[in-house]
Amino acid sequence: MPTATQTRRIDVDREAASSKSIEALNTTAVVLERVCAACEATSKVGPRSFLHAGPPIELANIPGPMRGAIIGGLLFEGEAKDVATAEQIIDSGEIELTPCHHAGGLGAMAGIITPNMPVAVAQSNGRLTFAPLNEGTDGAVRYGSFDDKTLARLKWMSTDMVAVLNEAVQANPIDLVDLVAEGLRRGDDCHNRLVGTTANLIVRFAPSFIRSKHSAAAEQVAAFMAGNGHFALPFAIIMAKALTLAASDIANSPIVTAMSANGREFGIRVSGTGDRWFVAPSPIGEPKLVPGVTMDDLTPTMGDSMISETAGFGAFAMTAAPAIMSFVGGTAAQARALVEEMRSISAGTSSRFLIPAEEHRGSPVGIDVHRVAQTGIAPVINNGLAHRLPGRGRAGAGITRVPIEPFIAASEALRAGTVA
Amino acid sequence: MPTATQTRRIDVDREAASSKSIEALNTTAVVLERVCAACEATSKVGPRSFLHAGPPIELANIPGPMRGAIIGGLLFEGEAKDVATAEQIIDSGEIELTPCHHAGGLGAMAGIITPNMPVAVAQSNGRLTFAPLNEGTDGAVRYGSFDDKTLARLKWMSTDMVAVLNEAVQANPIDLVDLVAEGLRRGDDCHNRLVGTTANLIVRFAPSFIRSKHSAAAEQVAAFMAGNGHFALPFAIIMAKALTLAASDIANSPIVTAMSANGREFGIRVSGTGDRWFVAPSPIGEPKLVPGVTMDDLTPTMGDSMISETAGFGAFAMTAAPAIMSFVGGTAAQARALVEEMRSISAGTSSRFLIPAEEHRGSPVGIDVHRVAQTGIAPVINNGLAHRLPGRGRAGAGITRVPIEPFIAASEALRAGTVA
Repeated sequence: MPTATQTRRIDVDREAASSKSIEALNTTAVVLERVCAACEATSKVGPRSFLHAGPPIELANIPGPMRGAIIGGLLFEGEAKDVATAEQIIDSGEIELTPCHHAGGLGAMAGIITPNMPVAVAQSNGRLTFAPLNEGTDGAVRYGSFDDKTLARLKWMSTDMVAVLNEAVQANPIDLVDLVAEGLRRGDDCHNRLVGTTANLIVRFAPSFIRSKHSAAAEQVAAFMAGNGHFALPFAIIMAKALTLAASDIANSPIVTAMSANGREFGIRVSGTGDRWFVAPSPIGEPKLVPGVTMDDLTPTMGDSMISETAGFGAFAMTAAPAIMSFVGGTAAQARALVEEMRSISAGTSSRFLIPAEEHRGSPVGIDVHRVAQTGIAPVINNGLAHRLPGRGRAGAGITRVPIEPFIAASEALRAGTVA
Repeated sequence: MPTATQTRRIDVDREAASSKSIEALNTTAVVLERVCAACEATSKVGPRSFLHAGPPIELANIPGPMRGAIIGGLLFEGEAKDVATAEQIIDSGEIELTPCHHAGGLGAMAGIITPNMPVAVAQSNGRLTFAPLNEGTDGAVRYGSFDDKTLARLKWMSTDMVAVLNEAVQANPIDLVDLVAEGLRRGDDCHNRLVGTTANLIVRFAPSFIRSKHSAAAEQVAAFMAGNGHFALPFAIIMAKALTLAASDIANSPIVTAMSANGREFGIRVSGTGDRWFVAPSPIGEPKLVPGVTMDDLTPTMGDSMISETAGFGAFAMTAAPAIMSFVGGTAAQARALVEEMRSISAGTSSRFLIPAEEHRGSPVGIDVHRVAQTGIAPVINNGLAHRLPGRGRAGAGITRVPIEPFIAASEALRAGTVA
């Protein structure tokens, strides 16, 4: 047992450490650096070395959509000539898997990133973060699809789209914190609704698109973006990753720096405990299902995009996006209750993500594992859900309560560590 | 005095008439037809025959900014070689003025429309409505500015911008009801905040801009639109005018079909009383002033853009746009109270303008003059305010209660007319 004096000092240390993390979340600047192939953003990918969403997972244990995404990745990279060959490669254990987070990156849903997949790259204090461009919901490798249409689209995205987008990014670097802050004023939560933010990106890119010598490609890119309301998601989450990296590795800080899931396990990282993952079984929640899908068809929650909530937007700013609530089966009143609840487990209030409907009050920012442990309130996230079978794609979306156990374990580890 | 039977029949007639107007407001389809010179949209303009905002006004009685706008119009049209000549033309009474509404059009603020000013044109059931393209707030003829920079911009808008925009409109006709409905989901009220709607317009036009042979002009147009959050306003109000025209001229209908002001008088038209204007002195309200401006510097309310509220958006959908409230000096809580109040004087609920924060409930639509007379509650509008001196431009913005007298007078006229 610590003495009373020790406890006070620890509390002060903890408070100061927490404040440092919150300050990082509130002040870190992040700009869009470029759009390119993943292998240009990280050295941790190779012909059969892929990144994946969530905490570490064994190849033998991956869920269906992650397997589908690896099949898609092998076909896309030309490592496998057909699905059967891809399955053989996987079954013979020849794929090396690394969490995206370990490479400073993020992958939505399955989060499989192969060397030539197109990614958006952010830069903050000289450090890069990245995430794959969003393929839409009509067949997507991130949901485990690997059909010809999906792969043809990905091929086009990795060539024409990368060229046109990167030209636009170089012509007009974008402040990604501002992009999300403005999104909240345009009815987006910037995790599950990004239609206004995607339009804003098109507006920012439009002068370059118009000037571009690749006029036909630019027109296709603009049309694709206009038809994909989630296109801005990777641009939002690479910013969130940059913020949480800046808030990381502060001794004694109880602030969560990553929440993530691989379809088997949900895991968190905490500033004061560094690279360690605290895990629990991945949740399913009570999603709104795609027609024809049953609860038994679902893969449990998967993906790195809940970095949004970790950084203070998404479900934590749901009052900014009442229009999305019906999409996930809820009401605007529920959104208000939910954000209020999230305030009770967050150590800070965002000074940049302001919610107009709350009189421009900042969103709750910086989940404090001690507060989660003390209140028994676990964070909520917006999430998509994939079919449990490879290649079957998107199956639902919801607002999901993540398991509380990792937060309690992290709280205990921090307390033990501080006293020791 | 009518007998009891007569009163019942009248009430039934009135209810049926009101329903017909509401149905028109809720079902009329409106598409963007073209962008062109005003003289191509109406025969009611000529070299010295201009349109103006609000109910009819004598040339000798026009307020400062309207005089400034006429000076700007004469210079723009080449009718006057300098300001002194323009002043002479005005002072000698050589300008013929017609309300925009009498030509089926609308003008924001001063609303001066000369033959070659660029307008957006909507079409609904074969009938055209139109309003000038928005020049921004950094010097604008509609606010009474007539400096060289303002006129050079207007010249460019009437040539390059019209060519590029009309090309885009012809390539991809836009459903203007849907544009505003989507705007309400993107945090716009579509009268005072249209930043999301303007972005949406750019997105819709982008493919054509990219394809355009006038590449340099298209890039300038895209950049101008991106920098002018009110650019979509004329596109929204020509739709509102089309809806209210469809709701007009229904015997006994107490639904307001126009609210409008000329800086001296505020006036309304009502479905059951046809073309008649009911007027009262124009209000100033309690606006948020531009720095350096005092209340004494203001011209009372002016402009046709309050057709927005007449058609069920703007201040009537303020709960969709909490971000705008601080711009006009209010709070999100006030917006909720205000929309609730407007429900008490409206005969209908919009089936198309849905407010996400109100669980997708429709906005109040169709101001009923009898309800206004009975409750003593006058409608509120979002409005901009101009400096009282010609050429001094924008002076403030606010949410303003319009005078109740015209509604009471219209209610009495309708009752008298029905019985007679």
